[in-house]
Amino acid sequence: MAKRVTIKEVAQQAGVSYQTVSKVITGKAQVTPETEARIRKAIHDLGYRPSHTARSLRSNRSYTLAYSWPPSPRDQANPILDQFLQSMFTEAEQHGYYLLTFPYHADPAARVAAYQDLIDTGRVDGFIISSVEYNDERVLCLLENKIPFVAFGRSNPELVFPCIDVDGGAGLRMATRHLLEQGHRQIAALAWPEDSRVGNNRLEGYFSALQEAGITPPPDWVVRGEGRVSFGFKATRRLLALPPGQRPTGLVCLNDAMAIGAMHAAQERGLQVGVDLAITGFDDAPMVQYLNPPLTSLRQPVWEIGRQLIQMLMDQLDTGEQPDPLCSLYQPELMVRASSTGQFAGFENVS
Amino acid sequence: MAKRVTIKEVAQQAGVSYQTVSKVITGKAQVTPETEARIRKAIHDLGYRPSHTARSLRSNRSYTLAYSWPPSPRDQANPILDQFLQSMFTEAEQHGYYLLTFPYHADPAARVAAYQDLIDTGRVDGFIISSVEYNDERVLCLLENKIPFVAFGRSNPELVFPCIDVDGGAGLRMATRHLLEQGHRQIAALAWPEDSRVGNNRLEGYFSALQEAGITPPPDWVVRGEGRVSFGFKATRRLLALPPGQRPTGLVCLNDAMAIGAMHAAQERGLQVGVDLAITGFDDAPMVQYLNPPLTSLRQPVWEIGRQLIQMLMDQLDTGEQPDPLCSLYQPELMVRASSTGQFAGFENVS
Repeated sequence: MAKRVTIKEVAQQAGVSYQTVSKVITGKAQVTPETEARIRKAIHDLGYRPSHTARSLRSNRSYTLAYSWPPSPRDQANPILDQFLQSMFTEAEQHGYYLLTFPYHADPAARVAAYQDLIDTGRVDGFIISSVEYNDERVLCLLENKIPFVAFGRSNPELVFPCIDVDGGAGLRMATRHLLEQGHRQIAALAWPEDSRVGNNRLEGYFSALQEAGITPPPDWVVRGEGRVSFGFKATRRLLALPPGQRPTGLVCLNDAMAIGAMHAAQERGLQVGVDLAITGFDDAPMVQYLNPPLTSLRQPVWEIGRQLIQMLMDQLDTGEQPDPLCSLYQPELMVRASSTGQFAGFENVS
Repeated sequence: MAKRVTIKEVAQQAGVSYQTVSKVITGKAQVTPETEARIRKAIHDLGYRPSHTARSLRSNRSYTLAYSWPPSPRDQANPILDQFLQSMFTEAEQHGYYLLTFPYHADPAARVAAYQDLIDTGRVDGFIISSVEYNDERVLCLLENKIPFVAFGRSNPELVFPCIDVDGGAGLRMATRHLLEQGHRQIAALAWPEDSRVGNNRLEGYFSALQEAGITPPPDWVVRGEGRVSFGFKATRRLLALPPGQRPTGLVCLNDAMAIGAMHAAQERGLQVGVDLAITGFDDAPMVQYLNPPLTSLRQPVWEIGRQLIQMLMDQLDTGEQPDPLCSLYQPELMVRASSTGQFAGFENVS
């Protein structure tokens, strides 16, 4: 067994006391250069590694960051989770940090209590949060505790904290313009409820692109509900039941799940997706390129965002100052596929 | 700001020295019951919480478990990641534990070094590993270091460690029998390379079900390659190019990604998936029920496995003994859908 080497063994090898070794390690030593050299040699020869706890005591740091996220429903994958986590802990490792994960409780009070517990026990040096909403109780808790954190997503303008966000409005503007370019004039939107900050941000892009084109969508072309496949399916069924002149021929969806539901509703009616009904999603989840037809979607630069968030957090920890700029806005990329063009161009990863 | 209450403040409030409070908290106290009661009251009144570091020093525990996993390719989701992580840290929280995540390095030496580093610094009390292969270097490292760990998956029989595995052989037997029941006799398999332990385990079920039915598959019906969509697509193209008498009408795939590639290859030839070519996958990734047609697949009881793995690990930490039984085998469930039957029965989550 590769037993942990102790300070005691280092002391024996160097012929000094436990206390002397301890003081040299913690930088509180007043020993002769010869003694220090002997201790350093013993540390090296024995392969002594100071424990994480000792290092934490010394530096008053936990070398740990924490992240929690809402679980996905069983029939829906979290489209960015793997990449986001990998990007964050890969970057954190560069700084000698690890990423702690913990449950995102459905009850807001329990949710905040989990954050407070990590803060009160000095367990972590900072947090990363995502799925940020208006008056987000996690933001309020972290600001009140003055603990460093960064967010993937903004909240109300008056809540000031470091964040990276994706310009969802620009994304939906791109998607809507793309459908306009394909010749569509009757373009509907599947959206989240009105209290969704992310949803409202994205929806602005839809309205502004239509306005540019001189189109005022009738109110029933914006259908709001939970961002699930089942909602997308049922909402699209209703849209397709409208009389021909009022029936949309294009549909932008605020996430991929709703777009997948919409595709099925169109196919159920015998419509050709991409031709009779052009559909776009958001997230570019892995695998949506393999749907039939492949789904046009907006891709977020997830790896870059995760990496950058950790760098912003590390800067705060190292300098004690907020990052400048405090917030950055990243552009999504429209991945055009057959669901919006009717043109299948072969799979992207098959040669 | 909700400032952290210090031992010093507790000492002032109780009218005793810092050392006395510290000794009472660490259980090393020899004070009168009255003094102890006064200290306890001050702790309660001030809301003092001992720091994680202090607690770690006292108990010689980190209250941390660690998990690392190989990143998925960009076009393929990790089918169980969200559920697996959520199940583990939800169970860990019940025991006062958190889950640390860290990079899974492509280079085996760097991979093991990351484990060794966590061990050497006493950062974690135990590990969870998955994607276990033959002579897995992580298993060898953890066994040598005598650090508690549990595995989702087995390795060579002579490597003895606590694990939970899913009976992949039973799964493929179910899938193959299901295709036989649909009237198929010419059933091919898309598999992983021969050095894949998980792959060989699953493939056994394919062979045994065919043997039961008196069928010996020709060697070219078992196609091995990386478990990607592109491989499934290309391998199925080749299978479908065989002369009619030798061409399979059924296809079991060792994961969903290969099955998705296979579906596209069949559709490219104008075949109806589920009728002309019946296809099954493995993993039941979120969303495969929304493919067109929905994919028949084998579902693993992921939540139960994650929960149980943490319980096994906590038992080891609490008792210092290995769990009994050391390993458990869970059964997968065959989710029958239109890709193998041609019968579309409506979506599972749409009422």
